[in-house]
Amino acid sequence: MRTIHVTASREYDVCVGPGLLRECGERIAAVCGTGAAAVVTDSTVAPLYADTACASLERAGFAVSRFVFPAGEASKTLKTYDDILRFLAENRLTRADLLVALGGGVTGDMAGFAAATYLRGIRFVQLPTTLLAAVDSSVGGKTAVDLPAGKNMAGAFHQPSLVLCDTDTFSTLPGDVFRDGCAEIVKTGVLAGEELFSLLERGALADRPEEIVARCVEYKRSVVAEDEFDTGKRRLLNLGHTAGHAAELCSGYGVSHGKAVAMGLAAMARTCAARGLCPAETAERILALLEKAGLPTALPYGARELAAAAMSDKKREGDRLPLVVIQGIGRCRVETIPGEEFETWLREGGAL
Amino acid sequence: MRTIHVTASREYDVCVGPGLLRECGERIAAVCGTGAAAVVTDSTVAPLYADTACASLERAGFAVSRFVFPAGEASKTLKTYDDILRFLAENRLTRADLLVALGGGVTGDMAGFAAATYLRGIRFVQLPTTLLAAVDSSVGGKTAVDLPAGKNMAGAFHQPSLVLCDTDTFSTLPGDVFRDGCAEIVKTGVLAGEELFSLLERGALADRPEEIVARCVEYKRSVVAEDEFDTGKRRLLNLGHTAGHAAELCSGYGVSHGKAVAMGLAAMARTCAARGLCPAETAERILALLEKAGLPTALPYGARELAAAAMSDKKREGDRLPLVVIQGIGRCRVETIPGEEFETWLREGGAL
Repeated sequence: MRTIHVTASREYDVCVGPGLLRECGERIAAVCGTGAAAVVTDSTVAPLYADTACASLERAGFAVSRFVFPAGEASKTLKTYDDILRFLAENRLTRADLLVALGGGVTGDMAGFAAATYLRGIRFVQLPTTLLAAVDSSVGGKTAVDLPAGKNMAGAFHQPSLVLCDTDTFSTLPGDVFRDGCAEIVKTGVLAGEELFSLLERGALADRPEEIVARCVEYKRSVVAEDEFDTGKRRLLNLGHTAGHAAELCSGYGVSHGKAVAMGLAAMARTCAARGLCPAETAERILALLEKAGLPTALPYGARELAAAAMSDKKREGDRLPLVVIQGIGRCRVETIPGEEFETWLREGGAL
Repeated sequence: MRTIHVTASREYDVCVGPGLLRECGERIAAVCGTGAAAVVTDSTVAPLYADTACASLERAGFAVSRFVFPAGEASKTLKTYDDILRFLAENRLTRADLLVALGGGVTGDMAGFAAATYLRGIRFVQLPTTLLAAVDSSVGGKTAVDLPAGKNMAGAFHQPSLVLCDTDTFSTLPGDVFRDGCAEIVKTGVLAGEELFSLLERGALADRPEEIVARCVEYKRSVVAEDEFDTGKRRLLNLGHTAGHAAELCSGYGVSHGKAVAMGLAAMARTCAARGLCPAETAERILALLEKAGLPTALPYGARELAAAAMSDKKREGDRLPLVVIQGIGRCRVETIPGEEFETWLREGGAL
């Protein structure tokens, strides 16, 4: 098992390794003490892992309650958030108690938002069960729900008390969901540098998932530690996401977040090579790694349509857009461009 | 005009004086710059003050939109919160923009919660138009909505960028609403000490509202500065609120917050005198000041019923209750008692 210590407004550990769900109760009790624990999970994850996690919590002395919502992004609404809050109130959780988010990104984001705001904030523990949640949403304290106008448009910063990534759970992931996580891992490789990127090129994710997840978490930890509230360096993590979010929107959310990020990352690699911002070889390596992971690299939407969608991105600053520009593997920087120039960037990146 | 500078996770000024609504635009622009400003207000305040505030904002260069919800605590729900978030999204507010809360405590708390969570937090300015909001909810950064299970059960800490208390607005307050504010002012007098308390006894609120409001804000500022997230000294501000919240609940919220706090404060004064924790004279002065302000001092509910209601208070710590005990004017302390003892405290305080 690997442990990454995160220092944010709350300090906590991210543990990565096999078998962690079976022993989650004692690990959580060691950090939080015991009391009431409300486990929030979805209808896909509940039958697979809820009994294991709840039994461990009960053995450790927690009074466990369980809230299950229908799996999928369509549940990530203020309505489900309201249901979770009512559930916590009905179970009379106090500020001394705990919320446990068991599942992927939707569960972690939404349950985290409930924990951030119930009684103005109670502690929560993340038990990510997808590769994407393990490397991405479990670190950084971002919590959210979607609004009709866009994804993650309501939320809060709220750091977990503990994150336990049980790598055994990856074995039950459908290939498509596993690939979604790969997109964020490739992105992290581009940001973190040659060491992680070449490990990925050599296929280390399949052989040593624990090491790769831990390295991604370490990288994100280092960025978030410098910029908890996302006003500076943390915007680097948005690499590929401006075009990616626009692609999600243009697809009517028919394209998953991971695939959309892959498309956005590929487009940015092509644009940066075309503009001479990075060597052509850098773009080729990024595209090759995405393809090797079974991820899409084409951006099959109109540049004008994508640019319009990007202007509803919550990162927009008035009529300007912050973009993460690739100069090389491990050398990216944020550049803020006038919104109207983004269409050209997208066209250079291969949009229609 | 008096200005109180607050240092919390965000530093800001609270300005207290006449005529501030007419000039709010330029004052807000000086602090926040211009951009889009969404003014959130209720159906009582909108016809009185929204035109004045919006015109001033427009003169200063803001693009103003206006959201009006039905006045009253019954609107302080996740439903109205959802409506506000959709309104902000429809008006395409970005993180560079601003929410302006114009009204009493319900407006400030709920609009503040929307500002705290829209795009994970945008700036907001408070324009309190009630005495209660001016002295209480405009300082401290607490934002919230009610859940069916209780008041203020979902919320966040979010500091405003500026608070402008226009004391002219107090002239339009119904007597009953004015008295609600008096209850928090008397409470502040008991906490702050002899200087403020004896000013109140001499009737200074009627003669010099600006000075009294400013003194109350200064006192709250000093407490909040030491304990932004309400884990220590700030709990002092809860004086009279444990019994008060229970009285609100037992009345089915038929009793206003201010009146309930007056009842709770009176009960605590009687109990503390009965237990020899404070001199009998201290309790008599508190009761006399409440009565002079036209506030109730009896607690006309059953002690058992009130104690049960208190155990659903969000301040509860497991089966213990933190109470603010009066030892003298300006000498209060937090004492945590077993929940089952509270019924006796209430009976000693005059509950049935």
